[in-house]
Amino acid sequence: MTQILITNDDSYSAKGLLALIDVAAKFGNVLVMAPDRNSSGLSHSFTSGRPLRVYEHWSNERVSVFSCDGTPVDCVKLAIEHFCPMRPDLVLSGINHGSNSSVNVLYSGTMGAVIEASTYDYNAIGFSLLSHDPDADFSGCLPYVEQIIANVLDNGLPTNVSLNVNFPNLPFGEIKGMRVCHEAKARWADSFEKRVDPYGRPYWWLTGRFICNDHSEGTDEKALADGYVSIVPTQPDYTCYNAIEALTPRFEQDSDTEKQ
Amino acid sequence: MTQILITNDDSYSAKGLLALIDVAAKFGNVLVMAPDRNSSGLSHSFTSGRPLRVYEHWSNERVSVFSCDGTPVDCVKLAIEHFCPMRPDLVLSGINHGSNSSVNVLYSGTMGAVIEASTYDYNAIGFSLLSHDPDADFSGCLPYVEQIIANVLDNGLPTNVSLNVNFPNLPFGEIKGMRVCHEAKARWADSFEKRVDPYGRPYWWLTGRFICNDHSEGTDEKALADGYVSIVPTQPDYTCYNAIEALTPRFEQDSDTEKQ
Repeated sequence: MTQILITNDDSYSAKGLLALIDVAAKFGNVLVMAPDRNSSGLSHSFTSGRPLRVYEHWSNERVSVFSCDGTPVDCVKLAIEHFCPMRPDLVLSGINHGSNSSVNVLYSGTMGAVIEASTYDYNAIGFSLLSHDPDADFSGCLPYVEQIIANVLDNGLPTNVSLNVNFPNLPFGEIKGMRVCHEAKARWADSFEKRVDPYGRPYWWLTGRFICNDHSEGTDEKALADGYVSIVPTQPDYTCYNAIEALTPRFEQDSDTEKQ
Repeated sequence: MTQILITNDDSYSAKGLLALIDVAAKFGNVLVMAPDRNSSGLSHSFTSGRPLRVYEHWSNERVSVFSCDGTPVDCVKLAIEHFCPMRPDLVLSGINHGSNSSVNVLYSGTMGAVIEASTYDYNAIGFSLLSHDPDADFSGCLPYVEQIIANVLDNGLPTNVSLNVNFPNLPFGEIKGMRVCHEAKARWADSFEKRVDPYGRPYWWLTGRFICNDHSEGTDEKALADGYVSIVPTQPDYTCYNAIEALTPRFEQDSDTEKQ
């Protein structure tokens, strides 16, 4: 029987997680280990300074749902080590309430969990819907979720490669199809709203605006803006291979020559 | 006057940060915005659910030291937006107490801050020493730190590229030089020690072992094992460009054909 591990960063009770469980349970047994609270923006962080607690929520013939008080990455580590009955065939994360396209993947707890699983070379997929609404309508993306899961279970993924899948917030009939993309170059323009507490002490609220000036072909932002599902093959290596040749003569040295 | 922003993930009082301040102050004015507590393993996480507090610690003619109760990424965002007197010429992070080579960069708050700065195309460098000792001896790496900072201030870095610099834990005279590298492929083999609290309830402590079977040439692990400083050019895009061609025929589709 196929074994699927599911996590997310919106917590074990999020609507997007429950939608994903329903699809995944068509393929096999599902174990959920998700954060016990909203853990958006936790990226690839893990917990080392304190131990983790685990809570059991509900189960049926196919599905067992646990939460823990750690990060999405903690959930993957702990589930694989102690709660999955065997090596999972697939690790899923989401469906996230909100985009994880482009540079958002850096901050994403949803994708942190997926990339963590990819370092162990599990087949792993992160799903995200471009709506932050806690009551968002996931029905439009579910047929695509099912199709992508079936494809990965049948054919696997390249070594250490995971998928970052984002859905436009559209009904199924208005989604135009799927595109395999690369991340658009973008950044967040942050601002902080300074306020003063009742005791006269300042504090700062982060706000921000997503800025994407990358209008090239083949980006996830372009696919999503055009009404397509974006699928970005993702890997856990930050090396800028293109820069190695240019930087080598600037930085490489041997101490024997340098220290004389 | 050159403006340098410094952060880290070991907190504003860490020995490695103080060592980095001393070197950076030779080049210009230094503003420090660092976490108010140990924030190791916080990766690229940021704080959205609560506001940030800022604390002023000490200053002299060249240096002003602040902390905040957020993540290293928060420190970069908040400092750039509200505390730096002008756009910094350079963003530094560290010197970290512990390695951020290979896959460790994924989890690293030190490098989270650096990669954040690189998304805004600041020149940014993360420095890490392969010793977790709070009283580690940074003297061996300081001449290299100074040389690398001078090089980047003089020549800049490619667009959106930052440097991940790791130092072997050796005296200066035993460091063999510097190598420009790519990340070694590696992963953590996690285990959790299950304990039971005085009330009979279980909890789990994360422990782990770094596993690197990548013995190819040109990796940061190889350079460090050979006694060299490793310099990995790093960029914020997770896309696996090599996989796009292979995955396109498997996943791309247009709904017009598919839904008929």
